[in-house]
Amino acid sequence: MWNHHVLMERLNVQYPIIQAGMAGGITTPHLVSTVSNAGCLGTLGAGYMNPVDMKDDIRQIKQLTPHAYGVNLFIPEFPSVTKSELKNAELLLDPYRKNLQLEDEPGIKDRENVFDKQIELILQERVPVCSFTFGVPSKDVIKDLKDAGIVVIGTATTVEEAIINEEKGVDLIVAQGSEAGGHRGTFLGPYENAMIGTMSLVPQVVDHINIPVIAAGGIMDGRGVVAAFALGAQGVQMGTAFVTSTESGADAQYKEAILQATENETVITSAFSGKPARGIQNRFIHEMKEYGDQILPYPLQNTLTKDIRKAAAIHKSPEYMSLWSGQSPRLSVGESATKILESIILQAEKVKSGN
Amino acid sequence: MWNHHVLMERLNVQYPIIQAGMAGGITTPHLVSTVSNAGCLGTLGAGYMNPVDMKDDIRQIKQLTPHAYGVNLFIPEFPSVTKSELKNAELLLDPYRKNLQLEDEPGIKDRENVFDKQIELILQERVPVCSFTFGVPSKDVIKDLKDAGIVVIGTATTVEEAIINEEKGVDLIVAQGSEAGGHRGTFLGPYENAMIGTMSLVPQVVDHINIPVIAAGGIMDGRGVVAAFALGAQGVQMGTAFVTSTESGADAQYKEAILQATENETVITSAFSGKPARGIQNRFIHEMKEYGDQILPYPLQNTLTKDIRKAAAIHKSPEYMSLWSGQSPRLSVGESATKILESIILQAEKVKSGN
Repeated sequence: MWNHHVLMERLNVQYPIIQAGMAGGITTPHLVSTVSNAGCLGTLGAGYMNPVDMKDDIRQIKQLTPHAYGVNLFIPEFPSVTKSELKNAELLLDPYRKNLQLEDEPGIKDRENVFDKQIELILQERVPVCSFTFGVPSKDVIKDLKDAGIVVIGTATTVEEAIINEEKGVDLIVAQGSEAGGHRGTFLGPYENAMIGTMSLVPQVVDHINIPVIAAGGIMDGRGVVAAFALGAQGVQMGTAFVTSTESGADAQYKEAILQATENETVITSAFSGKPARGIQNRFIHEMKEYGDQILPYPLQNTLTKDIRKAAAIHKSPEYMSLWSGQSPRLSVGESATKILESIILQAEKVKSGN
Repeated sequence: MWNHHVLMERLNVQYPIIQAGMAGGITTPHLVSTVSNAGCLGTLGAGYMNPVDMKDDIRQIKQLTPHAYGVNLFIPEFPSVTKSELKNAELLLDPYRKNLQLEDEPGIKDRENVFDKQIELILQERVPVCSFTFGVPSKDVIKDLKDAGIVVIGTATTVEEAIINEEKGVDLIVAQGSEAGGHRGTFLGPYENAMIGTMSLVPQVVDHINIPVIAAGGIMDGRGVVAAFALGAQGVQMGTAFVTSTESGADAQYKEAILQATENETVITSAFSGKPARGIQNRFIHEMKEYGDQILPYPLQNTLTKDIRKAAAIHKSPEYMSLWSGQSPRLSVGESATKILESIILQAEKVKSGN
């Protein structure tokens, strides 16, 4: 069932399965390389990383696997807020800071544009695959990457976003359904209008573009993989399935939260980063809900909550952590990524031949 | 690919494809019988029907097809509201009533419990299949139906709802994903917590119950059918795919709205009936949004808006009609139900053998 997928040739992988480039320390070089060594595509979630750490991780990945791997980047945004908006957003977080015994407020400096340096590094290191979230890079950046032999993957949550990605020249498109955990990739209009279930999104995107589509959202096992192919996808991207893997850098409490969660416990929140993302409902999300319009835009809110999330992890307090998860946590398993992938591949083959 | 599905034996159909029992005049006896004559299961949406009209339609269906068919019923609710809540809800609708030159306000009488009479009729007429939405009937009702040889189908939007359905004794369960058009079947807790995409919902439900699962939500063509089977479903239920069929009783403006819609134009609204349902965004939904908490509970709001929807149809004003649709309107076609089903079946066979 695997030998006809265009995507495998493009990505130089044995199976058209991509481990999503989740930001925030989940995608350790160990996880990325384990996935790539299993014949799939591991991805470093470098959205929030500075070029120095990113280089370290890429070098480590290269040492750990001879196979293809990817790096995911965020398209940068530079919103401006007034001093009072900033003060207010900080005040909202004060109770949590006190609770977690954090003293200094983080403050927000003028954020340098690390994106250009990240791209430079991708080119220098000849990273095989580079994927993007929160928008589409300029045609020039895409051309530079492609000229260097780097495969470029875009992210879309609607048909229109997929068309824009294709027009700008990306090689492949991840169609992210509403089931997906973590940040919504939506970059056109409010996210509420782009909460399209994977079952609906994938065939409609496939019908409107000519480049291969990678399905994401709710896919956790071999059943999801075969379903995604039936819908017209050439590959799948899975995030939540790998958060609970032994190689993942997620904190023990975070892994445990996913392993214990049910399908109806996730919600969409902007409280952690300023951008909507799906995670397991907890106290922080619940309490911040009423201040929705006072939350700073991405990436400012993310900067403000960074030490809260860090302290919450140290204090083993999942109630204040960002517990990103898709809508299929009941299908999660706490195994090594190698075993997770072996099971997925075996089950996919069984489902495919058994139906 | 069709010959091993348990469901086909239970439902006595050639293909495990169910046309959803959409209420509001869409499921004409002509549509229901055409679907059943094509080897699938047509369903009369009798949720809002009085037993007299229901009997007429069932008799017509019997004349038009020798094959199995189903009837869908709503579990009744009897909410009470104060006079001022009622007055206020009526006031909110006055601008629309004026606009559509409606004079008398509908008023709300004590609603008789037609449900018992509907069940009596199902038993008398020996309807082959009876499905339920908005809850689960009592164990006694389920037993009576099953004793009469009638197949009972429940609806679930979460794993817990599926488990309750199974415990109460239904034969089969429709797992309704968030992509689905029309009313949410949610009966436990707020609907927002039960907006699970089909890709996530189906395998998690399948893993937790022992009776066959029918996938619903976003399925419009052969790709969706094969995907649903891969996820572990034994059958599929499609609604939106049949609204635009020539046999459907939907108004021309409603059909046209679906045929022209994109995947991101539907929203969930309670403004028409008092219960959340997915439909194409229009003026009525948009304007009523801010009065969310003043909308009467189901079925009272439904009674209040009935003549507005009727007049809107007469005036060919889709801006005031309930344009129920799932998230895959781009996949809709304006053909006869026979042709729609032939295409679905042919495409499913191709997808299945081609992957």
